Amino acid sequence: MSNNSELKALFLNCTLKKSPEVSNTDALIKVVADLMTAMDVECETVRLVDYNIAYGTESDMGDGDEWPTIYEKIKAADILVPSMPIWMGVRSSPCQLMCERLDGSYRDMNAKTGQYPLYGKVVGVIVTGNEDGAHDCCSTTLYNFTHYGCTVPPNADCYWVGDAGPGPSYIEAGQGHLYTNRTARFLAHGAVWMAKMLKEHGPIEVNLIKLTEEAQKVSRDTAPAG
Amino acid sequence: MSNNSELKALFLNCTLKKSPEVSNTDALIKVVADLMTAMDVECETVRLVDYNIAYGTESDMGDGDEWPTIYEKIKAADILVPSMPIWMGVRSSPCQLMCERLDGSYRDMNAKTGQYPLYGKVVGVIVTGNEDGAHDCCSTTLYNFTHYGCTVPPNADCYWVGDAGPGPSYIEAGQGHLYTNRTARFLAHGAVWMAKMLKEHGPIEVNLIKLTEEAQKVSRDTAPAG
Amino acid sequence: MSNNSELKALFLNCTLKKSPEVSNTDALIKVVADLMTAMDVECETVRLVDYNIAYGTESDMGDGDEWPTIYEKIKAADILVPSMPIWMGVRSSPCQLMCERLDGSYRDMNAKTGQYPLYGKVVGVIVTGNEDGAHDCCSTTLYNFTHYGCTVPPNADCYWVGDAGPGPSYIEAGQGHLYTNRTARFLAHGAVWMAKMLKEHGPIEVNLIKLTEEAQKVSRDTAPAG
Amino acid sequence: MSNNSELKALFLNCTLKKSPEVSNTDALIKVVADLMTAMDVECETVRLVDYNIAYGTESDMGDGDEWPTIYEKIKAADILVPSMPIWMGVRSSPCQLMCERLDGSYRDMNAKTGQYPLYGKVVGVIVTGNEDGAHDCCSTTLYNFTHYGCTVPPNADCYWVGDAGPGPSYIEAGQGHLYTNRTARFLAHGAVWMAKMLKEHGPIEVNLIKLTEEAQKVSRDTAPAG
Repeated sequence: MSNNSELKALFLNCTLKKSPEVSNTDALIKVVADLMTAMDVECETVRLVDYNIAYGTESDMGDGDEWPTIYEKIKAADILVPSMPIWMGVRSSPCQLMCERLDGSYRDMNAKTGQYPLYGKVVGVIVTGNEDGAHDCCSTTLYNFTHYGCTVPPNADCYWVGDAGPGPSYIEAGQGHLYTNRTARFLAHGAVWMAKMLKEHGPIEVNLIKLTEEAQKVSRDTAPAG
Repeated sequence: MSNNSELKALFLNCTLKKSPEVSNTDALIKVVADLMTAMDVECETVRLVDYNIAYGTESDMGDGDEWPTIYEKIKAADILVPSMPIWMGVRSSPCQLMCERLDGSYRDMNAKTGQYPLYGKVVGVIVTGNEDGAHDCCSTTLYNFTHYGCTVPPNADCYWVGDAGPGPSYIEAGQGHLYTNRTARFLAHGAVWMAKMLKEHGPIEVNLIKLTEEAQKVSRDTAPAG
Repeated sequence: MSNNSELKALFLNCTLKKSPEVSNTDALIKVVADLMTAMDVECETVRLVDYNIAYGTESDMGDGDEWPTIYEKIKAADILVPSMPIWMGVRSSPCQLMCERLDGSYRDMNAKTGQYPLYGKVVGVIVTGNEDGAHDCCSTTLYNFTHYGCTVPPNADCYWVGDAGPGPSYIEAGQGHLYTNRTARFLAHGAVWMAKMLKEHGPIEVNLIKLTEEAQKVSRDTAPAG
Repeated sequence: MSNNSELKALFLNCTLKKSPEVSNTDALIKVVADLMTAMDVECETVRLVDYNIAYGTESDMGDGDEWPTIYEKIKAADILVPSMPIWMGVRSSPCQLMCERLDGSYRDMNAKTGQYPLYGKVVGVIVTGNEDGAHDCCSTTLYNFTHYGCTVPPNADCYWVGDAGPGPSYIEAGQGHLYTNRTARFLAHGAVWMAKMLKEHGPIEVNLIKLTEEAQKVSRDTAPAG
């Protein structure tokens, strides 16, 4: 099997806080990244709010838009880990912004297979919050990334939340939390195993162009007469 | 690579309607199942409301509970496709009930690896509704199944919904819909490719027992002194 | 203003456990019901799984369906409090089933105003879970009930969840939790104030029939020629 | 009863497109605003991306942050209508950003009652999208605003979405859609009736400070001995 050292993981920190402000999400990213590094995976973290990212759904909105820098890193990675704080029970606005910008990747497909640039990558997710909302962040984000072409391995999420209502954050209260440390390991090992397998035995043999043509024919044939 | 004919797909129809009432979800299941059958996959559909399934979170709640019958079918399949109508914007109650009952699978793990019975299977999802809610059904359900151990391949969802508000259903209005016919193919081909690969190159080398022990050690070491 | 003693609150316990099994949700219902009782509101709790409720979207599915009993209680109440445990990050299956069954209320409207039977009632929500998912339960359920005609006062939700992952439940760990005790009071006082005001100054002067006729005219006029 | 002409409605357009680009959400806002204007309500629309709004959770993040301008408008309105496009199945990033920024309002409470600045206002919601996701946008956003103190009247949402997958937008395909024109009227009339009633018979008699003190006492008394 391929050597892990050929694998790259990119952690996309969607905190609201610019560097060098301390980010709880960053602290949990570090736990997972250290585990992957120990498995010879090359890890990088980008903090989205440190970049000037325009609103929009194209891959380059021009006018100083720095999304293209992040998009290049995304395309170069094998494992993507969107990582975010919870706000108002759902994922943070920089995470939503990132998912909107990736819409541009649909127009950037492989000429032969129709596969998008993220097709064949592996996705995992990291969430921190004072309380409730992790499931919603994870499910929405993992699902969005499968539309962009990523594979979700088993137990691909790692989160920490405290009990109901305002309270301490991950750094202060969560670092010794067994569930989070356990799922950090499940995420790291599952994502790396899956990425290695997809690298070794991929690419995924699904031709989106050919299947779309088939669907067009079938849709024409089943359309109501009129 | 392994022969597809060794693969089994199980479609879990979570309609509210008992057989033989016509189910729109069943009609869309048939589209995807026919595609998989043509790829030599053995397909079976179960309609959950035809069974007497108890409320609860154990694998057998006793007293005439027929969940064990369905659970056996689930364990025997390589590809699971929870399929559901949308009600009130979210997945139907039989689908929620099914996800609750699968909670029992956590206590049914492999003695050596700690992997649950669904670990290593592939999941896709089918949704039909008169209107809005498919994304929520898909994201929640796919995410739940990754917790049980399933892998989500790219484009693992196929749905049909009409425009805003009450209106016609899939059978009446959706059968010639290109987007749905296209994603039916993406789902069928992606799930089969992934299941074949996991069968050939699996099992996934993640030892949940060993990783839990590591996490316990780390958690003890990082717990605040007191 | 009207006397609170004319007000009735109905707590709809959507636990998976039949009576007399201990329900954590029931324990939190009791906190809120005691507060409302002290404000002279007549409180009743029903546990849905104690009834034989059929799957479906009509108000009476026949064949021993006991939903009509619950539906009558719902129609007689001024304040409705769907109350539920979280399972797999979202509301329990009996809660989803209840929301599906209320779909039947759309066909049971006031002949003059077109208002549904729940129109003018107040809704609040109670949630308990070992961990994450309360926001999703609250937002989905409150929103569904506004479609049926209910009003949501400020801070209409009261929940308890523990920190990430499996852990103790409300009765064991949450009864002294300040946030939950605080929001229990916000919910009780807000719902009662709003119910009293709607009783005194209602009914809400919105004629759904007349507005639908206006919409039909406008829609015809704006429809594309063809 | 009070004259509607004393009422102000603020539509918060959370499109990704800066003025003067055409916004589908704006077109649906206009439908609802025209209805409210005809009821003598003073209506204003702000497009959030036309302002330089910082990431964060304080009411003024400094350094050119233009949120304070919007926050003042929000505090001056009686009816708030967050309005948004759907992206990736959920609400747009400017809408999420707005909800994050309103977190600052929690620290800006009435000295006597503890009520936040949005307490007593009415909220409705408008959503447009090519397809699926309106329920999620509505439920999350309405729920968030109840935490900030708003009341949700019955049928407080108006949305248009097309059928499954990419397709035409509201302006092109939705303007003659009956369901959307009908719910536009339900939203306009319900929100205005409720705002009028809250103005006439409010403020809501809920003292958050006093109730918090009660909760503190109860929590101390129920806390486990140790």
